[in-house]
Amino acid sequence: MSDAFAALMAPRSVALVGASDDVSRIGGRPLRYLREAGFAGRVLPVNPRRESVQGLPAFPSIAALPETPDTAILALPAAATLQTVEECAARGVRSAVIFSAGFAETGLEGEYLQSRIIATAREAGMRLLGPNCLGVFNPGLGYYGTFSVILDTALITPGPVGIVSQSGAYGAHIAHLARQRGLGISQWITTGNEADIDVAEALDWVVRQPETRVVMAYAEGVRDRDLFLNALENARDLGKPIVFMKTGRSSVGAAAAASHTAALAGSDAVFDAVLRQYGVHRAATTAEQIDVAYACAAGRFPAGNRIGIFTMSGGFGIQLADDAEAAGLDVSPMPEDAQAELLDMLPFASPRNPVDATAQAVSDLNLLQRCVQLMMSRGEYDLFTAILGTGPASRTYADPLRKALMEALGEAGNSIRALTMSAPLRWCAATRPTGFWCSRMARHSPTRWAR
Amino acid sequence: MSDAFAALMAPRSVALVGASDDVSRIGGRPLRYLREAGFAGRVLPVNPRRESVQGLPAFPSIAALPETPDTAILALPAAATLQTVEECAARGVRSAVIFSAGFAETGLEGEYLQSRIIATAREAGMRLLGPNCLGVFNPGLGYYGTFSVILDTALITPGPVGIVSQSGAYGAHIAHLARQRGLGISQWITTGNEADIDVAEALDWVVRQPETRVVMAYAEGVRDRDLFLNALENARDLGKPIVFMKTGRSSVGAAAAASHTAALAGSDAVFDAVLRQYGVHRAATTAEQIDVAYACAAGRFPAGNRIGIFTMSGGFGIQLADDAEAAGLDVSPMPEDAQAELLDMLPFASPRNPVDATAQAVSDLNLLQRCVQLMMSRGEYDLFTAILGTGPASRTYADPLRKALMEALGEAGNSIRALTMSAPLRWCAATRPTGFWCSRMARHSPTRWAR
Repeated sequence: MSDAFAALMAPRSVALVGASDDVSRIGGRPLRYLREAGFAGRVLPVNPRRESVQGLPAFPSIAALPETPDTAILALPAAATLQTVEECAARGVRSAVIFSAGFAETGLEGEYLQSRIIATAREAGMRLLGPNCLGVFNPGLGYYGTFSVILDTALITPGPVGIVSQSGAYGAHIAHLARQRGLGISQWITTGNEADIDVAEALDWVVRQPETRVVMAYAEGVRDRDLFLNALENARDLGKPIVFMKTGRSSVGAAAAASHTAALAGSDAVFDAVLRQYGVHRAATTAEQIDVAYACAAGRFPAGNRIGIFTMSGGFGIQLADDAEAAGLDVSPMPEDAQAELLDMLPFASPRNPVDATAQAVSDLNLLQRCVQLMMSRGEYDLFTAILGTGPASRTYADPLRKALMEALGEAGNSIRALTMSAPLRWCAATRPTGFWCSRMARHSPTRWAR
Repeated sequence: MSDAFAALMAPRSVALVGASDDVSRIGGRPLRYLREAGFAGRVLPVNPRRESVQGLPAFPSIAALPETPDTAILALPAAATLQTVEECAARGVRSAVIFSAGFAETGLEGEYLQSRIIATAREAGMRLLGPNCLGVFNPGLGYYGTFSVILDTALITPGPVGIVSQSGAYGAHIAHLARQRGLGISQWITTGNEADIDVAEALDWVVRQPETRVVMAYAEGVRDRDLFLNALENARDLGKPIVFMKTGRSSVGAAAAASHTAALAGSDAVFDAVLRQYGVHRAATTAEQIDVAYACAAGRFPAGNRIGIFTMSGGFGIQLADDAEAAGLDVSPMPEDAQAELLDMLPFASPRNPVDATAQAVSDLNLLQRCVQLMMSRGEYDLFTAILGTGPASRTYADPLRKALMEALGEAGNSIRALTMSAPLRWCAATRPTGFWCSRMARHSPTRWAR
């Protein structure tokens, strides 16, 4: 399996069948992205009507290529796909990505076409991604086997988040949101109709890549139960959290899923129980999925559930304390002597926990720092959270506030990935309840830091 | 009561006691904001050490003012407050706003000071806001009796959202978030320690203002039960939704609330039941509070719960269908003949509901329009939702997409307030479950439209 994925995700050479000069077309985009990224492998455009495409020499067919590529990207209509797969099989191409829709998801005729394609590939030992998928990318290698429009704005920065999605549009959506949050991506795979490679197999591969620290996954259902359980087990053993969006819960959703990627959603309750068993975080919304992945991306997790909450306005602290307690976290008070010390410094403060340093700390950041340092050194907290209201949104105040906080947090600050949220998280867990709670915290404090 | 609020919220003249030349100080900010807003009333700075403040003639005391102001804003330390309240009472000032902390929330001594202040005011028939509050604003009149720093960036646009918050920082936070979402504010009142005016009374007044269509409220507890029930009843009778954030649910939160604004949180279960009884939406997070208020701000509400979901990628539609069904909405199918018509147009579409127009409609916006028009004219939906993935985030695609959608929606588009969300809402309800669901929808599709 590793070999097939190496061919698919890190090819030494790639054929683009249906290559186009028009960089806004499905056959033009992958080539444009590969060129922009400076992909080091060989790129072989296939187009019988052109001598060159986007400045690269083009070839009339797979058979006419000067070498056998590791992978072929098929940017072709459904009707032309079978013949090209047969050509790839005959040539010994090891893997192919099929973008086109119009297969099993459209009815009996498409199902038949898909079955012929997969039979051809199986016989030749060639692995297939799709059809009806948005392809793959592997930013660390500058490899973009996709026509996703999210790359129009910018290519993707390599980073700790793996993405595996049955739905191409959903996979692109969360990749875009991750990028907005400043998260880099390790590998991105969309599986579409899953005639061959499915979410389970892709998940297993992405989890095992050293760059990956956390995986966001999307599926409407799972085809191979054993492969899926195996992938979840591997992730758990490697300590890499998976944040899962599984749709098709409702009857109407399940019916829609069947006509989308021809997947059987299966029993949602069973799926839910499996995710729980393997410690997978099942996200209820996309925002939660991003938040939890974000919190996990630093790769550090709390040792316990004691949480210290810092604020400069009581209302925020109370809101977080309510939520933290509801999520099973331990909002335990500061030690008595530390409380006394805090009151010496800030006579109107609430020194227990949540610690409310009051508006006095807003205007005197030195007081803020001493207060946060006291919490860090004496509170014995496993998690630390500051909720700061509109402060981070202020053009003049955001920078001094951030600087003061980071200094006060010291070493712990190095693992904070959350400064685009309103509140810095010291450590966040993938497992419930802390992952869930981190997500809710972001919902309480949706202000972004001014730049 | 109206008279007192007229004096407080729409004063013909205002004294600012503790007025400062430094526009970054608590005594400088309100004056700066009033001047920037071109407030038409008379502004009377009081400062015994200056002849003028920020270019306006200053007076040494309340007694020395050339006229009796409708309201006095006290930007003074706690220790100087009682004497000034006595001076205001002697002069016949009708209302005062007290910014300073250091009263009932700090212990017995502060409680005593607060009780003397309130006794003085009561005897003179003067109404008080605070202490320990952030004041008020009334953007339609350019009246800013507050030192809130959120006005540093820009003053507030008048609009349909009233805000009443016990916590000043929380009130400022949601005002900032509302502004970010493009929502204007009718009136804004923060009540702090509520020595006199409480959330209930302020709520009742804001609800009855003609500019107000929806109110966001925050409280840790309620002092006057009857006033509160009366305000909720008035809001219900006027058809103006209230979106409430009530904190102090947990034991640790309730304890923190007591030390914050000296409020008794009371039984959360009782509070919750009361809100339900009056059809008030209790928000679980700040983001939900903003989303629901946003959805209500157009002042149009669905007649029923039949929802049509439009997408161009199946995964999104399924996600929304799951959530809509879980929220008690009716994801009812398109009529059979309309489905057939849709399939004639888009052979690979899912025509039931959610309607998935597939990537074909992405590249042909004319098809998108015909598809949406079909849903609008034939689906008999009470709510219409489009979930559009990364489309709205694309710099090149967002504008044509928005234009195509608005044209297709026709008249219904006029009531859409949600184009800064990823999905346009035709109508949204304040009442559960639709308000809640609108909020969740925003969580599924947190992309903002590119500009």
